[in-house]
Amino acid sequence: MSDLSNSADLHNLRSWIDAPAGSDFPIQNIPFGICSSGTRPPRPCTRIGNRVIDLRALAEADLLNGLGIDPGVFSAPVLNPLMAHGKAGIRRLRRHLIELFREDNDFLRDRKRVVEEAVMPVDEVTMHLPVEVGDYTDFYSSREHATNVGTMFRGAENALMPNWLHLPVGYHGRASSVVISGTAIQRPMGQMRPNADEPPVFGPSKQLDIELETAFITFQGKPLGQRITTEEAEDHIFGMVLFNDWSARDIQSWEYVPLGPFLGKNFGSSMSPWIVTLDALEPFRTNGPAQDPEPLPYLRTRGPGSFDIRLEASIIPKNGLETTICHTNFKYLYWTMAQQLAHHTVNGCNVRAGDVMASGTISGPDAGSFGSLLELTWRGTKPLTLADGSQRKFLEDGDTVVIQGHCERDDLHIGFGEVRGEILPAG
Amino acid sequence: MSDLSNSADLHNLRSWIDAPAGSDFPIQNIPFGICSSGTRPPRPCTRIGNRVIDLRALAEADLLNGLGIDPGVFSAPVLNPLMAHGKAGIRRLRRHLIELFREDNDFLRDRKRVVEEAVMPVDEVTMHLPVEVGDYTDFYSSREHATNVGTMFRGAENALMPNWLHLPVGYHGRASSVVISGTAIQRPMGQMRPNADEPPVFGPSKQLDIELETAFITFQGKPLGQRITTEEAEDHIFGMVLFNDWSARDIQSWEYVPLGPFLGKNFGSSMSPWIVTLDALEPFRTNGPAQDPEPLPYLRTRGPGSFDIRLEASIIPKNGLETTICHTNFKYLYWTMAQQLAHHTVNGCNVRAGDVMASGTISGPDAGSFGSLLELTWRGTKPLTLADGSQRKFLEDGDTVVIQGHCERDDLHIGFGEVRGEILPAG
Repeated sequence: MSDLSNSADLHNLRSWIDAPAGSDFPIQNIPFGICSSGTRPPRPCTRIGNRVIDLRALAEADLLNGLGIDPGVFSAPVLNPLMAHGKAGIRRLRRHLIELFREDNDFLRDRKRVVEEAVMPVDEVTMHLPVEVGDYTDFYSSREHATNVGTMFRGAENALMPNWLHLPVGYHGRASSVVISGTAIQRPMGQMRPNADEPPVFGPSKQLDIELETAFITFQGKPLGQRITTEEAEDHIFGMVLFNDWSARDIQSWEYVPLGPFLGKNFGSSMSPWIVTLDALEPFRTNGPAQDPEPLPYLRTRGPGSFDIRLEASIIPKNGLETTICHTNFKYLYWTMAQQLAHHTVNGCNVRAGDVMASGTISGPDAGSFGSLLELTWRGTKPLTLADGSQRKFLEDGDTVVIQGHCERDDLHIGFGEVRGEILPAG
Repeated sequence: MSDLSNSADLHNLRSWIDAPAGSDFPIQNIPFGICSSGTRPPRPCTRIGNRVIDLRALAEADLLNGLGIDPGVFSAPVLNPLMAHGKAGIRRLRRHLIELFREDNDFLRDRKRVVEEAVMPVDEVTMHLPVEVGDYTDFYSSREHATNVGTMFRGAENALMPNWLHLPVGYHGRASSVVISGTAIQRPMGQMRPNADEPPVFGPSKQLDIELETAFITFQGKPLGQRITTEEAEDHIFGMVLFNDWSARDIQSWEYVPLGPFLGKNFGSSMSPWIVTLDALEPFRTNGPAQDPEPLPYLRTRGPGSFDIRLEASIIPKNGLETTICHTNFKYLYWTMAQQLAHHTVNGCNVRAGDVMASGTISGPDAGSFGSLLELTWRGTKPLTLADGSQRKFLEDGDTVVIQGHCERDDLHIGFGEVRGEILPAG
């Protein structure tokens, strides 16, 4: 089989499953997720256009044989067992699926009974968290975001901490509360100190915010004690998702000294359902910002290490109109995923299949490209006016936040779909 | 069956399995762990004296019936499925085991074939990580430790951060690198900046330290969005272990601003193999320090919420003599486990069976009771002299660290065994 993921034919490839122009999911994408439907329990799937394809059904029809993949993984309720087959296994599977569904291949298309069983309209399925998350790490890799937040809290001259340009700062988040897109998020209660001259108080957060992020999902890494180098790093990355790291700024700012964010973050983090592979993103590879000072040798990389992924966030008030509040791009991030993973493991820390490593808030150079309300409203001093005329410093109950992302170049469009969540009142 | 865990008879109870005087594991303990041996794969077990008792073997002999516990859980390689039966299930099982093994009960003792199968000398088994760790949280609940570290880094007048007396400060650690006692720990490589006037450097940590801690292991909590109150908290706690949160101070001090510890900690955290239940610790319940200012209502508790657990740490250099470097006590901790768990979930954060929540370094009031080398040597300014005449500011390659803990009162002795780890050279 030809190397379709990099071939010159790729742009012109079409599927016998129709994908509308501009769909996030042409045959060139072939992302992976977990779906259920009616009496079908959760199982691995992919998607073309507005059709979800049940991989268990394909496996049961003996259509996924000969790939060196244990057919049992297609009955699992998470992708972790499939991911145990690593980059090479996933690559074989993706190419095989592209082959099965390409327009000029009638082998599967004409087996009507199998197609009827395996191919479902997207609105008839429920999507689930695609992986069992072992550990969730959040980086802080947007220079613009770190500078904005630093300027607000410490002044422009001390905006970036001394370590920031030398290493991809990161911290551990909470795995238990990573949820699938569509899960409602309850406004957290917590302790905060709105007035520094008075004792702290307890109540619902009044500064509930989004963080527009992406995340990458890892394959099994190396045993404890062994590092993954920048050159090896992408071989340990399964793919990417959109990520909203909901943040309660008032809880966070009171609790986070000296050990970092905790209850200001761990009430929920939302993930989009489709893991888009790095192979699908390959045509959109690009350079990130120049790095000065040059990183230490263990963080150096060769060639372009970023991707041109257009990202946007919007707010939909209860029964209201949608307002796009930010347009930004993954390529603005200062540190690459390969650098993040190499840094994370340089001390011997082990990673496992299904670990989630988020980018940190992605902000760009101009005010319309900031990835949080904290920055967009400059700490509440410049409220946003939404399409329905209402104003926002932070999120209100009933607000739905939608983050979308896609790549586009020379008529090739590869997207992530969306990550969505509605804010429920504090309980 | 009488409520043995709280009965007046408890002190005088003996088992037909001999437990030497002063053993950590009399019949009053009945801790839980995971063992393997020869051809036996890992399975749940308990321990009396120097004998490990294979619960799978007891279940297969139909000796664990009638407890409302699915017998399949005794074949699992971790305790999580057993723990799904919650506090009430574990309590029934412990009482049943005490009944089976009490001196005056010959029902099991006389079934020689079953006893031969189920009861093994402790030196013939290998102990494993007892739970699959979903999330690992580390608190920072020793006032003396926080004050010591704060004094060293910010001066005596700013030692405690403004939030410290108002909430149990904590942060998320790395679940993947929590390892069982006996696992060697490789000295981490990493980035640090020993001289603030020069660029950061890369190399093996030169300030490798211990943190003497305990940890509690949770049962399944409530769904995302629902809090666990201080009154409910102990019902969600399975038991306690000893914990060594190895720390590379030079890596940590460079990386940790502003998001907290990351690579300075996540290269390994060691846990003792036996989970000692709160029921076993009940006779040693005591008050912690008075809390002033009074905590906010969601953190208030009634009655004694701490336990009198004597703790010590020692260093054994390669081929050298053991030197005890610290004697401290769990009861010195300012915040109780119930307060920690209530705080952790007050924003709706969910906990799962097998989550590990560590205390933070446990330091007492005097210099011999500090739980880290950082404090014991006061940042390296007062090196320790070991029994073999060598000196330590921080750990050297080949050093083995052993942390032990037990409770003792009126001839009743309940212990944890030990958590042990040897430092290997950087790889």
